[in-house]
Amino acid sequence: MARLGGCWAFLCRCFFQYETPKILLIRSKKVGALNRLVQALILAYVIGYVCVLKKGYQDTDSVLSSVTTKVKGVALTNSSQLGLRVWDVADYVIPPQEESSFFVMTNLIVTMNQTQTRCPEVGVPERAASPCSLGAVNGYRSVQTGKCVNFSDSARTCEVFAWCPVETDSEPPNPAVLANAENFTVLIKNSIQYPKFSFGRRNILPDVNTSYLRNCIFDRKRDPHCPIFRLGDIVSEANEDFQSMAVHGGVMGIHIRWDCDLDMPESWCVPKYTFRRLDNKDPDNNVAPGYNFRFAKYYKVADNVETRTLIKGFGIRFDVMVFGKVNVVCDWVVLTFMKKSNLYKEQKYSYVDDYALVSTSHQFHLFL
Amino acid sequence: MARLGGCWAFLCRCFFQYETPKILLIRSKKVGALNRLVQALILAYVIGYVCVLKKGYQDTDSVLSSVTTKVKGVALTNSSQLGLRVWDVADYVIPPQEESSFFVMTNLIVTMNQTQTRCPEVGVPERAASPCSLGAVNGYRSVQTGKCVNFSDSARTCEVFAWCPVETDSEPPNPAVLANAENFTVLIKNSIQYPKFSFGRRNILPDVNTSYLRNCIFDRKRDPHCPIFRLGDIVSEANEDFQSMAVHGGVMGIHIRWDCDLDMPESWCVPKYTFRRLDNKDPDNNVAPGYNFRFAKYYKVADNVETRTLIKGFGIRFDVMVFGKVNVVCDWVVLTFMKKSNLYKEQKYSYVDDYALVSTSHQFHLFL
Amino acid sequence: MARLGGCWAFLCRCFFQYETPKILLIRSKKVGALNRLVQALILAYVIGYVCVLKKGYQDTDSVLSSVTTKVKGVALTNSSQLGLRVWDVADYVIPPQEESSFFVMTNLIVTMNQTQTRCPEVGVPERAASPCSLGAVNGYRSVQTGKCVNFSDSARTCEVFAWCPVETDSEPPNPAVLANAENFTVLIKNSIQYPKFSFGRRNILPDVNTSYLRNCIFDRKRDPHCPIFRLGDIVSEANEDFQSMAVHGGVMGIHIRWDCDLDMPESWCVPKYTFRRLDNKDPDNNVAPGYNFRFAKYYKVADNVETRTLIKGFGIRFDVMVFGKVNVVCDWVVLTFMKKSNLYKEQKYSYVDDYALVSTSHQFHLFL
Repeated sequence: MARLGGCWAFLCRCFFQYETPKILLIRSKKVGALNRLVQALILAYVIGYVCVLKKGYQDTDSVLSSVTTKVKGVALTNSSQLGLRVWDVADYVIPPQEESSFFVMTNLIVTMNQTQTRCPEVGVPERAASPCSLGAVNGYRSVQTGKCVNFSDSARTCEVFAWCPVETDSEPPNPAVLANAENFTVLIKNSIQYPKFSFGRRNILPDVNTSYLRNCIFDRKRDPHCPIFRLGDIVSEANEDFQSMAVHGGVMGIHIRWDCDLDMPESWCVPKYTFRRLDNKDPDNNVAPGYNFRFAKYYKVADNVETRTLIKGFGIRFDVMVFGKVNVVCDWVVLTFMKKSNLYKEQKYSYVDDYALVSTSHQFHLFL
Repeated sequence: MARLGGCWAFLCRCFFQYETPKILLIRSKKVGALNRLVQALILAYVIGYVCVLKKGYQDTDSVLSSVTTKVKGVALTNSSQLGLRVWDVADYVIPPQEESSFFVMTNLIVTMNQTQTRCPEVGVPERAASPCSLGAVNGYRSVQTGKCVNFSDSARTCEVFAWCPVETDSEPPNPAVLANAENFTVLIKNSIQYPKFSFGRRNILPDVNTSYLRNCIFDRKRDPHCPIFRLGDIVSEANEDFQSMAVHGGVMGIHIRWDCDLDMPESWCVPKYTFRRLDNKDPDNNVAPGYNFRFAKYYKVADNVETRTLIKGFGIRFDVMVFGKVNVVCDWVVLTFMKKSNLYKEQKYSYVDDYALVSTSHQFHLFL
Repeated sequence: MARLGGCWAFLCRCFFQYETPKILLIRSKKVGALNRLVQALILAYVIGYVCVLKKGYQDTDSVLSSVTTKVKGVALTNSSQLGLRVWDVADYVIPPQEESSFFVMTNLIVTMNQTQTRCPEVGVPERAASPCSLGAVNGYRSVQTGKCVNFSDSARTCEVFAWCPVETDSEPPNPAVLANAENFTVLIKNSIQYPKFSFGRRNILPDVNTSYLRNCIFDRKRDPHCPIFRLGDIVSEANEDFQSMAVHGGVMGIHIRWDCDLDMPESWCVPKYTFRRLDNKDPDNNVAPGYNFRFAKYYKVADNVETRTLIKGFGIRFDVMVFGKVNVVCDWVVLTFMKKSNLYKEQKYSYVDDYALVSTSHQFHLFL
C-alpha cells in the first residue's frame, strides 16, 4: 500500500512537472548591439534580397520543358496480301504528332476493302446455347441479323451486320512485319527553361553543327550528346530485345535528366539520357501483353460507296520524360542564412567566452 | 518625465540584451566516449547505408507509370442521312491512340460530300449593316465572294467560297446518336515502377488469368480488381448521367491510386480506382458546355476531285491519372535516425542522471 | 614537446566532452497542470480536427484540372499547285484533339498523287563513291532498286521504290502559306477542382454570358478574363513574331495560373494567363529549328489503286499548362498550432517569470 502510494506520488510528480531549456540573458551593450546588428543584417537581407528581388521561393522548381520528335526510316515489306510495299514515316507514326510521345508501328494485321454490309461472323460457330438472334452484339464489332449462314463449306456462323469482311483475330505475325523499325532513328528536340533564373538550354548543344547532326547516332560512349537515337539502341539499352518487343508492341520510357549547377560553366550543363521499358514484361504475368490499337483508312470508290482498310497496329510507344534540377549557390546562401539558429550559434560561441563562468565541480566543468 | 526615463531605460535594456540557451559541457571520458561512439555509428550509417547503398534520397518519389487503353464495343445507328450503320472502335475513338487519355465519340453532326467550291452561307441573311463583300471572313469556315444569292426560296445569303455545302450549325441530336456507348468497355493497362526500390507492379494482378480477363467487368464490390470498365459505370460512379453527358460531351477523370507498403506482402499492393467528372457541370454557369471538335475524312472521287465528310464529334474524353506513394520501413528508420536531436535526447537523458545536481530551492527542483 | 603534450591534452579533452542544453524542470502543480492542459488541447485539436475531420494532409496539393480547346478561323490560299483553296479547322488542326495541347498548321509542303512504284530519287545524283545498289535505303523514304535512271535531261539519279513521286525536300515557303493563322482564335476551357476543399472553378467566369463569349477576344488590359485568344496575340505577348515563327513552326506555352484564397470572396479567384515560347530561339544555336512533321491523306482512285497526298506540315504547337495553389486560413491555423515549440515558448515565458531567480553577478543578470 505504501509502495503504491509512492508510485502514485511519483506519477503525479511526473505529470505536473514542466521542462524548459534554461535561458541565459546577457545584458551587455557590446553583446546586445552586436546581436541586434546581426539580426538587422539578416532581416535586411531576407526582406531586400529574398522577398523583393527574388520574389520569394514559391516557384523554385517550375521547370518549363518542350519536347518535339521526328522519326526517320523506311521499311520494305513483301506479303501476299499487300504485295511489295514501302513504309515511310507518314505510314507508321500514328497519330502524326503528340505532345511528348510518339508511336512507331512495328507489326500489323490488315483487313482490306471493308464495307458496311452483312456477312458471316468469323470463328464463332452457332451453338445451341447461344442461337443467332436479331440485334445481339457479337463481341465488339458486329451486330447479329438473326440468321445463320455458311461461313465455309464445313462451318456455319451467325450472319452479322458489320464492316465486312470482319477481321480474323489471330496472333500477330512473327517476326514482325516492320522488323526493320529497329533501324529507324528519332531526333528528339528538348528545350528547358528556368524562368526564375532566366536560364534556358536545349539538348542540341551549342557546339553541334548541322553536318554533325545529319550523321550522328547516339552512343553512350562515343556520341553521348547526339540527340538522334536508333530505336533498336533505345530498346537494347533497356536490356530488351527489339524483335520480340516488335511483335506484340510495348511502351518505352526515354528519360532526359538535366542536373545543372548554374555557378559552373554553362557547357557543363548537359542532358543525360536513360531508357527503360515501362509496360509489363513479367513472364509470370503476361496476360494481355504488348500494345496495339485499331485504326482505319477510309476510301470512297466507284459509286460513292465508303470502304475502309482496318489496321490492327502493334508497335512501341516512346514516352519522353524530362527531369530537371538546377542548383544555384546564391540559393544555398539564402537558405543557410535563413537558418538563423546556426548563425546565432556562431555568434553565441564567439562572445559567450567573454562571460565564461567556470563552476568547478569534482566531476565536470560547466560553461554557461 | 522620470517615468518616461524609466521606460526608456527599460527599452534600452531590452534592446541590448541577448538570450542564449545555457549549455552544459560534460567533461567525462565515459560520457564523451559514448557520445563520440553514437556519433560515429550514426555517421557510418548515414554515409554507408544512405549515401552509398541507397544513393541518397533525391529520387524518392519518382514514380514511373505507363498507361495504355483499349476500348471495345459496337453501336448500330439508323438515320435518314447515313442509313443503317455500324460503328466500331476504329470509327469512334479519335485519335486512335493517345498517351494516357482516350476519346469516345458519343454524338455527331455529319456534313457529307463537301467540296471546295462556292455556295450560299447558311443561316446568315444579308443585312444592310453588313453587306456581302469580297474576301470578308464569314464566321470561322468560309470566305465571302461578294455576291448575294438565293439560299432558299425565301432567304438570300452571301455567297461564300468554302467546303460546300457548309455545315448547318445546330444543337446536337438528343438522345445522342451513339447512345449505346454506355455499354462500351475499356481495358486499362497500367504498369508502375519505383526504380529506386526495384519495385514494379501492374493493375492486372498476378492471380488474374486470361479467361477471367475476357469476361470480367469492374464492380467496386464484386470485382474491384478487374481492369475492364464499362463506360456507363465510370460515369455513374461519378454521380453523372451518361445519356445527358453523351449529348454535349465532357471530360472524365479516371484516377488510379497505388498506396503500397513494401514491407507488407506484395499481394496487398493493389490499385484503387476513382472516377470524377473534370469539366464544368455547374448548371448556373453552363456557357459553352461539353466537349466537341471537328474532323474530316477525305476522299477522292471519279475525276480526282477531293471531297470530304466533315464530322462535328461530341464525346467523352477520359483522362487516366496515376497517383502513387510507396512506404518502406527502412526509410522510416533512416529518417528517424537522421533526426539526430531525438537520438541525442535519449542519450542525454540516460546519462545526465549520473551527474544530476539537485539544487534545492524553496519552490522547485532543478535537474541539470 | 611539452607544448605538443598540451595540445594533445586539449584535443583529448575536446574529444571527450559532451554538450547538452541545460533543462529546467519545474515541479509546480499550477505550471504542470497548465502545461498538460495546453498539450491536451493541442492533441485534441490535432487528432479531432486535423486527422478525423480533415483526413490528414496527404492530398493537400492534388489539383485536378481539365483543358479542352477549340480553334476557329479560316484561311484562303491560292497556289499553282493547289489552286484556290479554303482551309478550316478540320484541315489545319492535327490530330483533331489532344489532351492539353493543340497544333495549328501554318505552313506546308504538299506532294500530291503519290503511289507505291518506282521513280528516280530527287536531288541525290549517283556518285562513284556510292553507286546505286539493290536494297540500299535512300535517306529515310525510299529503297534503291539498283538501277540508275534519268532524273532530268541533265541529271541521273538512282531509281528507287517509294511513294512516288518523292517529295522535293526544300525550304518551307516564306511567307508561310497559312499566314492568316495569326487571326485564328482559340477558346480554352479550363476547369479546376480541389477535391479536399470541395472547391471547383472554371476559367469561363460566372458573370460571363453567351453573347459576351461570342464576341470577346482576350486583351490583358481590356478583357483579361475572356477565354478566347487570338493566336497572333499569344505569340506577340511572348515577344515573338508570328509571321517568322509560322514559317518553320515552333512550340508555345500557355500558362494558366490559379492562386486563390478560399477565405476571400470567390469572385477574387480568377485565372492569370501568361505566354512563353518553349522551343529554342537562340539565334546562335539554330540547328534544326522549328517544328514540323509529315502526314498523309490516303485515297483510292479508279482501279482500286491507293494514292496519297503527303504533307510536310510546319506549325505551332500550343501546350496548355495549369498551375494552382489554394490558400485556406484554417490550414494556416493548423500549421501554426502544430509548431508546438512556438506555442510552448509563449507559455513558458508567461509563467517562468513566477519562478524567476535573479542570480546577481557583477556583469549580467541571469533569468532561469
